[in-house]
Amino acid sequence: MIHVGRVPVGGNSPIAVQSMTNTDTRDVETTVAQIMALEDAGCEIIRVAVLDTEAAQAISSIREQITIPLIADIHFDSRLAVSAMENGAQGIRINPGNLGGADKLARVVDAARAYRVPIRVGVNSGSIEKDLLKEHGYPTSENPTALIESAMRNVRLLEALDFEEIKISIKSSDTLTAISGYQQLSKLTDYPLHLGVTEAGGLIAGTVKSSVALGILLHQGIGDTFRISLTRDPVEEIRVCFELLRSLKIRERGPELISCPTCGRTQIDLFSIAEEVERYVQKMEKPIKVAVMGCVVNGPGEAKEADIGLAGGNGVGIIFKKGKLYKKVKEEELLAAFLDELKKIEQNQ
Amino acid sequence: MIHVGRVPVGGNSPIAVQSMTNTDTRDVETTVAQIMALEDAGCEIIRVAVLDTEAAQAISSIREQITIPLIADIHFDSRLAVSAMENGAQGIRINPGNLGGADKLARVVDAARAYRVPIRVGVNSGSIEKDLLKEHGYPTSENPTALIESAMRNVRLLEALDFEEIKISIKSSDTLTAISGYQQLSKLTDYPLHLGVTEAGGLIAGTVKSSVALGILLHQGIGDTFRISLTRDPVEEIRVCFELLRSLKIRERGPELISCPTCGRTQIDLFSIAEEVERYVQKMEKPIKVAVMGCVVNGPGEAKEADIGLAGGNGVGIIFKKGKLYKKVKEEELLAAFLDELKKIEQNQ
Repeated sequence: MIHVGRVPVGGNSPIAVQSMTNTDTRDVETTVAQIMALEDAGCEIIRVAVLDTEAAQAISSIREQITIPLIADIHFDSRLAVSAMENGAQGIRINPGNLGGADKLARVVDAARAYRVPIRVGVNSGSIEKDLLKEHGYPTSENPTALIESAMRNVRLLEALDFEEIKISIKSSDTLTAISGYQQLSKLTDYPLHLGVTEAGGLIAGTVKSSVALGILLHQGIGDTFRISLTRDPVEEIRVCFELLRSLKIRERGPELISCPTCGRTQIDLFSIAEEVERYVQKMEKPIKVAVMGCVVNGPGEAKEADIGLAGGNGVGIIFKKGKLYKKVKEEELLAAFLDELKKIEQNQ
Repeated sequence: MIHVGRVPVGGNSPIAVQSMTNTDTRDVETTVAQIMALEDAGCEIIRVAVLDTEAAQAISSIREQITIPLIADIHFDSRLAVSAMENGAQGIRINPGNLGGADKLARVVDAARAYRVPIRVGVNSGSIEKDLLKEHGYPTSENPTALIESAMRNVRLLEALDFEEIKISIKSSDTLTAISGYQQLSKLTDYPLHLGVTEAGGLIAGTVKSSVALGILLHQGIGDTFRISLTRDPVEEIRVCFELLRSLKIRERGPELISCPTCGRTQIDLFSIAEEVERYVQKMEKPIKVAVMGCVVNGPGEAKEADIGLAGGNGVGIIFKKGKLYKKVKEEELLAAFLDELKKIEQNQ
């Protein structure tokens, strides 16, 4: 187990949810605003890109204004890594092998030790060393060896300096390579694993790819923290993270909304009711199960496991609790009456 | 293996992609329009709810105007089932145990045999027989027995009539119950399995739950056809279906778009470029890999496996092919130049 600031990662700790800002890190105000939106959504660790000294120095002002731990993402430059830690980064993501030699790596590791900062060795399919590609071939689902060897080579460089506050990621944009890579890696090492599919794509394609790969891995008990990367507002990433954890009953945050896809039986405008209810429950904290069903006939039965639900049709709407009728209301009053009930639950009435 | 119209389901057939209309089936025009939009999106089998005789009769006019096979979804009413088949339904979804007795079931099975129509036994957590709930408890991931027994009891009713053109679904709104239920069912029977998570929810929650459950099952080789149900336009369901199949390399339809999540390094408006490219490739048929990357430095390397990609930053954009620079263009011309290249690929130039 390691700690990123106050957040434990690995062992029996809760799977930690991460995101990364897509702002210019030097623009403190914009970056802080994005991190605060991410905190509200439930993000537990934030990573920022550090491209130059000014960005490394900005970390100090950023940290003053946020509450979750911050990781600096650095490529190639050992001085930026040291500067980021001096300025308060609580984790760094670097690849020890590409910092430009043993001396430079030693300085980074000394700083990490001094500031008690863990290092994520984060390799991906596109950044594998040439000799490993030559020996093992480009990583595939059948043979992800190059990816794993690249990570383990970087890990050994840190271990040689007696540094073991490590977590590892091996990212691929290919779902099956990510799955088999992490499966094999998890057998080779006890370091915490950071899961992710890289360049996953837009909202839907990225959500599907990440849900499949990370779903399979987390279901097998593999992975200690993860990021879902989408070509989108990072707040959406966090929302997908929690839906994923909830679907596997690993962690819950706020209500779960189940709703039927509607069919020829549906006689009310369920899409807009579902959207209104979804908007409301996103602000609730309690992990209750809420159902929005199209028809009175099958709705309550099909959503028996819901703590509270609604079903409409033919002028009369009903509110049900645990599959049993709780209240009948006129259909046009259904949404308002239902939101009232949710409010009561929220206020423990 | 069974056939729904001309679409084979089971054995080594391609995993068939389904959806269900949410229109009033009696409204032929609206229903046909929705089915045609679904066909365009790649839907291979369509299901419609049949609530009354008029809906059953509408099937005949609907079928004249569509090309994919049609399944009638029927609850409780044997006469509707027979009428749906008389009117051209190429599959029916009923639960033999709740048709009201042996005589009625026999009439449905006779019609199914006469019209060569397969029957889906489709049970879900909310519709399990009381005696099975009493004996086995409400289905959970640890003990999905009631769900499986309910399906198998219905299957045995059909087998007793020497009818074996069967597929089975056992739907739950709980991801883990769906996973363990189908895993156990697949060991008990060789009938084709129709996968699905019921009441999965809205676009994101539903996509995540379905991707996790169906991703795990399909990755294990379980499942012959599936529907992803979302409280949304069913065309979105089909899109998610194909993203899921693609992510597991089971089937491909059109280009795969990979794109980076952007970070502090990104100096162009990648979100809108990615959206434009996504819109364009959705109309393409070739299963090429297309990358949209934020930065020239790492982009082409990280997207090495892409057939074609773009990366921007600092006034100059590049187009790369298989990780190698293909063309430099001014950033403001990048999108147009890229779409031109995609067009060339489409036209085999």
